[in-house]
Amino acid sequence: MAGMAAERDDEVVLQALRARLPDRALVTDPDVVAGLSHDDAEWAAVGRPLAVVRARSTADVAAVVQVAVEHGVPVVPRGAGTGLSGGANAVDGGLVLDLSGMDAITRIDPLERLAVVGPGVVNDHLRAAVAAHGLWYPPDPASSPWSTIGGNIATNAGGVCCVKYGVTGDYVLGLEVVTGTGEVVRLGRSTAKGVAGYDLTSLVVGSEGTLAVVTEAILRLRPLPAPARTVAGYFDSVVAAGEATRRVWEAGLVPAALELVDRHCLAAVDAWKNMGLSLEAEVVLLARVDDPGAAGDETAVRVRDCFTAAGATWADVSADADEAEALFAARRLAYPALERLGPVLTEDVCVPIAAVPEMLARIEATGRRHGTTIANIAHIGDGNLHPLLVVDSSDEGARQRAELAFDDIISDALALGGTVTGEHGVGLLKRDGLAREQSPALLAMQRAVKAALDPHGVLNPGKVLPPE
Amino acid sequence: MAGMAAERDDEVVLQALRARLPDRALVTDPDVVAGLSHDDAEWAAVGRPLAVVRARSTADVAAVVQVAVEHGVPVVPRGAGTGLSGGANAVDGGLVLDLSGMDAITRIDPLERLAVVGPGVVNDHLRAAVAAHGLWYPPDPASSPWSTIGGNIATNAGGVCCVKYGVTGDYVLGLEVVTGTGEVVRLGRSTAKGVAGYDLTSLVVGSEGTLAVVTEAILRLRPLPAPARTVAGYFDSVVAAGEATRRVWEAGLVPAALELVDRHCLAAVDAWKNMGLSLEAEVVLLARVDDPGAAGDETAVRVRDCFTAAGATWADVSADADEAEALFAARRLAYPALERLGPVLTEDVCVPIAAVPEMLARIEATGRRHGTTIANIAHIGDGNLHPLLVVDSSDEGARQRAELAFDDIISDALALGGTVTGEHGVGLLKRDGLAREQSPALLAMQRAVKAALDPHGVLNPGKVLPPE
Repeated sequence: MAGMAAERDDEVVLQALRARLPDRALVTDPDVVAGLSHDDAEWAAVGRPLAVVRARSTADVAAVVQVAVEHGVPVVPRGAGTGLSGGANAVDGGLVLDLSGMDAITRIDPLERLAVVGPGVVNDHLRAAVAAHGLWYPPDPASSPWSTIGGNIATNAGGVCCVKYGVTGDYVLGLEVVTGTGEVVRLGRSTAKGVAGYDLTSLVVGSEGTLAVVTEAILRLRPLPAPARTVAGYFDSVVAAGEATRRVWEAGLVPAALELVDRHCLAAVDAWKNMGLSLEAEVVLLARVDDPGAAGDETAVRVRDCFTAAGATWADVSADADEAEALFAARRLAYPALERLGPVLTEDVCVPIAAVPEMLARIEATGRRHGTTIANIAHIGDGNLHPLLVVDSSDEGARQRAELAFDDIISDALALGGTVTGEHGVGLLKRDGLAREQSPALLAMQRAVKAALDPHGVLNPGKVLPPE
Repeated sequence: MAGMAAERDDEVVLQALRARLPDRALVTDPDVVAGLSHDDAEWAAVGRPLAVVRARSTADVAAVVQVAVEHGVPVVPRGAGTGLSGGANAVDGGLVLDLSGMDAITRIDPLERLAVVGPGVVNDHLRAAVAAHGLWYPPDPASSPWSTIGGNIATNAGGVCCVKYGVTGDYVLGLEVVTGTGEVVRLGRSTAKGVAGYDLTSLVVGSEGTLAVVTEAILRLRPLPAPARTVAGYFDSVVAAGEATRRVWEAGLVPAALELVDRHCLAAVDAWKNMGLSLEAEVVLLARVDDPGAAGDETAVRVRDCFTAAGATWADVSADADEAEALFAARRLAYPALERLGPVLTEDVCVPIAAVPEMLARIEATGRRHGTTIANIAHIGDGNLHPLLVVDSSDEGARQRAELAFDDIISDALALGGTVTGEHGVGLLKRDGLAREQSPALLAMQRAVKAALDPHGVLNPGKVLPPE
């Protein structure tokens, strides 16, 4: 009987949505719904939603949230579904709100150095569009060929450029959102500066759709940077690579990227693409230097000298774009190369720069202890590590061991003064970690904010905040 | 009788504070209390507080807020009192919480590029201390010789460097705060990146002591920049200066400062220091270029060429530090030079770059219409204008006309797509403007956040949010 009542209720919700939405916005085909019910997080729980709404306008989004409030139905916003923490995973009986169709670039303004975009605009599409005006949108998560600006905002996405140019939130001037009560509200501003009222823009950035649904963003842009040089260094230990990073920092240098790729990644890339890197290095460091002119050339040489002084077995500067691309390809191909070996559970801890060598050593020990292959790529200049746990999908025991390793990595990051998530967000996978990282009083403040802005609890419930 | 009851209640509050605070922390001397009851905002209402507490520790601050919650007494945090919006003005019967004594620089870490400081550390003191380590704390409000980091955080202070290096909030990684319930909570992080939970750090930044009291800050630092060149341009109209700014922006150049000083300021400076500037220009533009090496030299020449192409009557580049200092002196001396003529009511609107010439023209017309002298200094590269309304203090009519002019400037800024406050904060003076700038729904969201984090309403009540 309960099941029949639920079915009747579901039909009422679907009817209410159909009455408010354009034709074909509401999707109930089980295969389509299932395909849009999860992001890329391995092993995060996925609910069975009632339906998907493909929103095409702010009015569509407002209608969905209003119906959700009226009927007490959860709404899970999603973009391209490239998230790695389960933040876009569907909730049982809820609605998936697909924003990928709201992909208009409404304005690119070279004078104000800003763009106004829908949440569904793909990161790389935006970058290409503004480049045509001599402008640059820096945030460059590895998902940039597919991930949307709305998703980038939801997770406050980072990337390779952050070490010099900051993260997504540093480029969000203002937002149009649909609130937890279904109202359309503009937050922030379109001026270069502004301190009128509380910074709700920054509060919504990184809140993973739990405080509001972003329907438009005003993004800050920069002029395109000067062409970059790439500095590569091969090291025979992670400790030496950590020492190289320390030297670059202490020399007062600011590379536009500083990336680490370890031997597990190099071996996987070699096994796939036969680049031969794993024969030459245990660890590769890649720096990008985009200071203009001779000063940039000098900075690149100084970065190389820091690598050498830290014991690099080889280090050199390249100003050739093709050569630089080949060097960064190892970084870019690491993840897909590892995925060829089995499902990859991606970690995202961030620790102080000084703690990076110790953290990498502990990750190595954790892998040995649990018999789990753990490869490492890292935005080492930010102390943001991505241990990649590769698992044999046919072996349930391997999966359980990987989950233990995942928890141990979190414990070690916290013990070293780090955070459980540098750029991927909390979603479902890091809720326990959040509860371990933050004080009960801080969690209570966040619950109070959530209750204040989503009083009906319909916006992506169960994400970010750990259960009480 | 009510008065006597109030006095008895006051004595109970003072007793409770004495029991919790170190000797001499509680100050009731009327002259001292009056002197610490207001900031530098002209004409903002000042209440008569019960007492001042000179906090020396986080425990002192927690004790004050706990007593305040218990007895329903407002708490107004303050640093140096250099605010320009009345945000630190005392509330009748409340406590002034003076944080200027919490002035320890606990840590300067060149490797992590961060500093840990008390809220009472003076901006320039911090800058000097980190410079000794080759590091730089960029935010540079004009008040930097006196204003405290706590006050800078409370207002999300800007300054001259923002156009390239951002505002205070861009340099706040984490905070220790005392909450509205008197708990000590750490927000944010000390790692370079981190997205664990909601960004309450950014929410507290700029909230003017209404959501929490900052007791410690973890600040991001940069390496010291390269020595800068100064580019000066003389123009015969604000429209020409606006055109010069447009050309610099459209050329993709990023100066580290771009400041405008108008003829009223030049005349006041000349009257005081006899620099002769007002004979040569209606408007002066000053740019600072700190790109390193030859590229920076080239950028400076290109800025100069933009000035010339826009009709500058004179423009030149100087790499001489003394000459640059002399040029920026006119900018720095404008405010005190004007204050010699009478009380100065400082505006702080921010408009799109494209709207700056029109906004300056409207300000000129507003001054004529109300018979008020309005001088202009502007962070023109950010569109952040500081019309300075100079009033004869002996003339009540002049003051009333200046208040009308103040309101008209706000109206014009809003009509041109701007905001009522670029960097000074809302305090008391911009509450009406905030209500005009923001939608009722947005104001309601902010009230909900205030109620969630300050449920007893003791933290700087009446500031920022307009009365309902």
